[in-house]
Amino acid sequence: MSDQGATLTPSPAPPAPTGPRPKVTNRGRTTIPAASSNSDSTDVPEFEPFGVAGPRGYPPMTEYLDIWDVDMVRNREGSNKQQHHTDFYNSDALIVRRGQEFQIKIIFNRPYKPTEDKFALEFVIGSSPQYSKGTYIPVFPTQEQQSSWAGRIVNTSDNAVTMGITPIANCIVGKYQLYVAVMTPFGIRRTRRDDTRKLYILFNPWVAADDVYLDDEKERQECIMNEMGIIYHGSFDDVAERNWNYGQFNYGILDACLYILDRSEMPITNRGDPIKVTRKASAMLNSHDDEGVLVGNWSGDYTYGVAPTSWTGSTDILLTYASSKMPVCYSQCWVYAAVFNTFLRCLGIPARVVTNYFSAHDNDGNLKTDIILLEDGRIDRSNTKDSIWNYHCWNECYMSRPDLPAGFGGWQVVDATPQETSDGMYRCGPASVQAIKHGQICYPFDAAFVFAEVNSDVVFYSRKRDGTMVPVKVNQTHVGRMILTKAVGSMERRDITDNYKFPEGTKEERTVLEKAEEYGCKREKSEPPEADVDLVLPTLEATVGDDFTFELEFINRSNEGRVVEAYISGNVVYYTGVTSSEFLLRDSIVRIGPQKSVKTTVEIESKKYMKNLVEQANLHFIVSGKVKETGRIVTALKVVNLHNPKLTITVSDVGKVNEEMMAIVEFTNPFSFSLEDVYIRMEGPGVMQPKSKYYSLIPNGSSLTWTEFFTPHRAGTTRVIATLDCPALRQVHGQASLTIEP
Amino acid sequence: MSDQGATLTPSPAPPAPTGPRPKVTNRGRTTIPAASSNSDSTDVPEFEPFGVAGPRGYPPMTEYLDIWDVDMVRNREGSNKQQHHTDFYNSDALIVRRGQEFQIKIIFNRPYKPTEDKFALEFVIGSSPQYSKGTYIPVFPTQEQQSSWAGRIVNTSDNAVTMGITPIANCIVGKYQLYVAVMTPFGIRRTRRDDTRKLYILFNPWVAADDVYLDDEKERQECIMNEMGIIYHGSFDDVAERNWNYGQFNYGILDACLYILDRSEMPITNRGDPIKVTRKASAMLNSHDDEGVLVGNWSGDYTYGVAPTSWTGSTDILLTYASSKMPVCYSQCWVYAAVFNTFLRCLGIPARVVTNYFSAHDNDGNLKTDIILLEDGRIDRSNTKDSIWNYHCWNECYMSRPDLPAGFGGWQVVDATPQETSDGMYRCGPASVQAIKHGQICYPFDAAFVFAEVNSDVVFYSRKRDGTMVPVKVNQTHVGRMILTKAVGSMERRDITDNYKFPEGTKEERTVLEKAEEYGCKREKSEPPEADVDLVLPTLEATVGDDFTFELEFINRSNEGRVVEAYISGNVVYYTGVTSSEFLLRDSIVRIGPQKSVKTTVEIESKKYMKNLVEQANLHFIVSGKVKETGRIVTALKVVNLHNPKLTITVSDVGKVNEEMMAIVEFTNPFSFSLEDVYIRMEGPGVMQPKSKYYSLIPNGSSLTWTEFFTPHRAGTTRVIATLDCPALRQVHGQASLTIEP
Repeated sequence: MSDQGATLTPSPAPPAPTGPRPKVTNRGRTTIPAASSNSDSTDVPEFEPFGVAGPRGYPPMTEYLDIWDVDMVRNREGSNKQQHHTDFYNSDALIVRRGQEFQIKIIFNRPYKPTEDKFALEFVIGSSPQYSKGTYIPVFPTQEQQSSWAGRIVNTSDNAVTMGITPIANCIVGKYQLYVAVMTPFGIRRTRRDDTRKLYILFNPWVAADDVYLDDEKERQECIMNEMGIIYHGSFDDVAERNWNYGQFNYGILDACLYILDRSEMPITNRGDPIKVTRKASAMLNSHDDEGVLVGNWSGDYTYGVAPTSWTGSTDILLTYASSKMPVCYSQCWVYAAVFNTFLRCLGIPARVVTNYFSAHDNDGNLKTDIILLEDGRIDRSNTKDSIWNYHCWNECYMSRPDLPAGFGGWQVVDATPQETSDGMYRCGPASVQAIKHGQICYPFDAAFVFAEVNSDVVFYSRKRDGTMVPVKVNQTHVGRMILTKAVGSMERRDITDNYKFPEGTKEERTVLEKAEEYGCKREKSEPPEADVDLVLPTLEATVGDDFTFELEFINRSNEGRVVEAYISGNVVYYTGVTSSEFLLRDSIVRIGPQKSVKTTVEIESKKYMKNLVEQANLHFIVSGKVKETGRIVTALKVVNLHNPKLTITVSDVGKVNEEMMAIVEFTNPFSFSLEDVYIRMEGPGVMQPKSKYYSLIPNGSSLTWTEFFTPHRAGTTRVIATLDCPALRQVHGQASLTIEP
Repeated sequence: MSDQGATLTPSPAPPAPTGPRPKVTNRGRTTIPAASSNSDSTDVPEFEPFGVAGPRGYPPMTEYLDIWDVDMVRNREGSNKQQHHTDFYNSDALIVRRGQEFQIKIIFNRPYKPTEDKFALEFVIGSSPQYSKGTYIPVFPTQEQQSSWAGRIVNTSDNAVTMGITPIANCIVGKYQLYVAVMTPFGIRRTRRDDTRKLYILFNPWVAADDVYLDDEKERQECIMNEMGIIYHGSFDDVAERNWNYGQFNYGILDACLYILDRSEMPITNRGDPIKVTRKASAMLNSHDDEGVLVGNWSGDYTYGVAPTSWTGSTDILLTYASSKMPVCYSQCWVYAAVFNTFLRCLGIPARVVTNYFSAHDNDGNLKTDIILLEDGRIDRSNTKDSIWNYHCWNECYMSRPDLPAGFGGWQVVDATPQETSDGMYRCGPASVQAIKHGQICYPFDAAFVFAEVNSDVVFYSRKRDGTMVPVKVNQTHVGRMILTKAVGSMERRDITDNYKFPEGTKEERTVLEKAEEYGCKREKSEPPEADVDLVLPTLEATVGDDFTFELEFINRSNEGRVVEAYISGNVVYYTGVTSSEFLLRDSIVRIGPQKSVKTTVEIESKKYMKNLVEQANLHFIVSGKVKETGRIVTALKVVNLHNPKLTITVSDVGKVNEEMMAIVEFTNPFSFSLEDVYIRMEGPGVMQPKSKYYSLIPNGSSLTWTEFFTPHRAGTTRVIATLDCPALRQVHGQASLTIEP
């Protein structure tokens, strides 16, 4: 074929190269890797010549301005920190908020001459700073020359110039390095890099131009400035509280929060956008995929870490993550939400933790949770695989939503708890609460998912012998029964169910559900005929270890006699609604006269449930049965939260800043068995760093007393909070209020 | 404090446990792990009793129906495969499409008695099958009893019954196991698990009830049935083609596609939803995060894998991934898009590959690509960090969008190429093309991102000495210059730019950009005054190794003389627009009379660029300068694709199914240097499996001839395609058309 040489013959292919495969580089793909770490930085040159030097080099530049010192005006009583609401941060660095002026004082070698001298403050963040990316911002003192950040001279005296700088209200949030540059005819002369000249710029809910602007000082005080948290759990008719120290101002927390973003490799240029920051953080707070902050564990075995119920605040978790650079063990939903809340408040995004009672989790945005019954009305355990969480905690954060049509700004749901069985959702939100309320679930991010968590129906199916299933009852009010958050400025709770849903049974509610269905949320449409017998279960409170009586009431609404064959199943459940074990199964035939009601009682003996109890001590009763005359199905569900013994904390009511105080924690083992491997943890916002004590054994009936001294470092009303935790007994709390005077 | 015993003292905390941390289980978190593998399956019991057996066990069940055999009616000429458009699949199993009836024949031990005998076909997918989740579906022969899948008896003869089964049009897509169950008074008796009784159910674009319904037979033939692909590259004014064998019907490909979903751990229950399947697959086609199919590499060093330009089709890639269970090396955008296309067509989702010329990639949904110039008009290389891809390939797939308001169904963009420098976007889409065209970019998924890829402005900044930058020119027409896909039913190209954008300069276009801005897409708003001198660069075609002349024309539109000081920079670039090296930098002072034009030429010598050429042989010319009289900036950009030598393939024009044919590949090394480590690859849809040959050396001027025999296995017009690849020369193609007669 060629006239230049013989035709070639192929060779056997060479063996595949051995040894580790080299790391693929970004060569050919991008000019430079995107800056994605707030710890990296490039050194800016100290001298940047304008042209080639003459044969004798540059002349001595003694006649030009020289910088002797830069004062970051960061002292605690200085104007910057107070005006920027950052004086609580336990940090030596200057911390300010964007969109608002702060001051920096420069001391020159001689008085500044406005007509002759040209200088600029240069703010630099990340590697490869660039003006058009907002990572390099020069700030000029004169009206004629201004960059995207406003600059002005506030004051001049002797050799000192005080500059006022206003970072643009959408600037990148994080840690900046400050340089002072002086322009000479030969080039730009700069201060050397100096780590004391760093400053942190945060989101600013006090400024209308910021996307996180929140127009209510009391709300800002609660959702940015408050370290003391209350997170609700238990059940809607027996609400319980956890106290939590968010600790967003504690030493090292701000750096830990920035480390989380660095660890996520989030490009620096995106870090001014609260939508992107909160979405990224919802992924990074859990360890799935990305070696994020917290490892989830719902198994009851926490040998290799701290039990989720044992934490008292976020400080230990965030500092451990930032120092070990490894995910921290262990977390459940409220721990994710609490640490996320610290992150958000620390960076200046208004945030709160909310609790949704009966949360239809993990069902991938469908509006159905299935409970399968056998033909005789008993629950079919082997086929019932969905579960409804007794409660689920997530966060709301406040921001405008320029990416959506008008009306969807305000509170947004973000959720860092990984959704194990859904389609790999290890991030959730921000989803507009307004969009959820109005069924506008087509808007990002994950609104349909949250909508299902508060609006799913519980569908009872009867499973026939041939494997098919017929819906026999649809309960539309069980899921999303109540949504709570801590009230602004008080220790009370606030019911915000109305923010998420129109009242059950209203026309608006129906319209919203129809709207959601248009966007593909599938519901069970059949309306199985209702039984004419109602079943009412009691509200009851009991303490772990008590025997108690469980009373069922059957109400016959018909004009004929009814016989109900009912099955009562008592189960120990996790707070996720997952059954650990069934400790009671009784059947009962109840005869009810026309328009009459009949009560029947079941005695619950503690010995039956105690040996199987799991950490949050929840008992779940499912009563189901069949009306003999009509074949209709009767069902009812009830969660009973057994109350745990308490820790007692005693503190003097009133203390003074910087004066030592004492807290006494006491506990008596009320059980007939010993407690082993017991940890007690204690801390208090503004008064006490996290502390812990370990007791290898607390014999039954015996008591412990732990006395701890502490020195409050700021004034105000606060709490000291403590937990006790051991494998045999979890979720034991105590707290004491105190007021610190200045 | 206790009167029952002495107060306890704390112990030192025990040492942290050593050894590896145990794997966290889902205990307490979920009842069962979600079924997420189509390879797992539970054995369904052979006998499922209805009650407890009597003291003598169960009576002999000879009087009830027994199953002798099940015929899956899977023979090639059988009605199922042809009517379901699945006869091209090279598979022994039955493959059907949902929403459409298929037939299965059951042979009993005796004739079926409709009034007495009760049986059902049971279709089971994944572990823990459940009727309410759509993973267990019994199908009944009688009108009175029907499940979500319709069943009927089509034919009865002797002991055989032919059942017609219509899977519901939104059923799960994947591999099902079939059982036949007979109901006896004592329980359900089933056939034993038998791997020959598996069947695959696919998406069905032929059926209106399916979300992927496409109402055009020609389009369906192209976007589902065609294995022969043409993928466009080069530049908009010099379009080049790659031939590609999608190979969606090749042996093992369907199983490989299901393996991809299994590997992603996508819950089985989501696999009927084309939105979720395509979104998940866009993440899984790249290896980022999830050990997905293809490893991206743009570096030019492909030592440890196959160069992206060397692949001829998807078959090798998918089969390697499924057998090695490791990501395959290496890929660039068209490889991702081509393999994704195979995946989509194989599962029955209408799909095509599109090419966007000048694609503003990696800019995170902003509408700006920055080019920085020095004050004298030269490009400032160290500060220009954005790049525009010469072209970028993605996929479109066709489906309705029930999750969005009406009007956004139809073609959807999905993109599997990882967006390296954007905010960790390793999945993209589905984004409605209609939403992109109308600026409705608030709808999921990632519409804003794709909008920016086709609509960004190129902004030229002049960088001042103090570091600030002033926009001097905004080019609104460069990016998204043309969008191409293969035409339906021909080998021609089809310009679909109109699907994405209103024509430049129209009122609609302006409205759309304003709408997009409302949703937070930031544009450069300044309108720097235009220079009155235009600069026109030539369209030219050149072959690798050629010297050629580059001609610039300056047009003075003013009534005065103009002097332009212009800088011409010639660069070798990757197709990602990233510069590898600058081989030419010239300045030129051009004087132009009023209303006159002046041409100036630059000679390009091959020796200047040859030694630095990177794989796709693109030269990028940037001409920029300043008009002396006005200070205005003049700029122009030009990509020149040097053409490579060709492979020659010779095949007889006409062949016959199952008759051997011959293909001859020839290549002569036209360069002055030898080529080393040369791979040649060849394959052809429906006629030839992938083959390759290795030549350790092709001396300059010498030729090779490779003769390969092959046997076409189906009729039609098709191509044989081949590539040649070695480190010194990439992207050498050849193809030959042929028609196979039945």
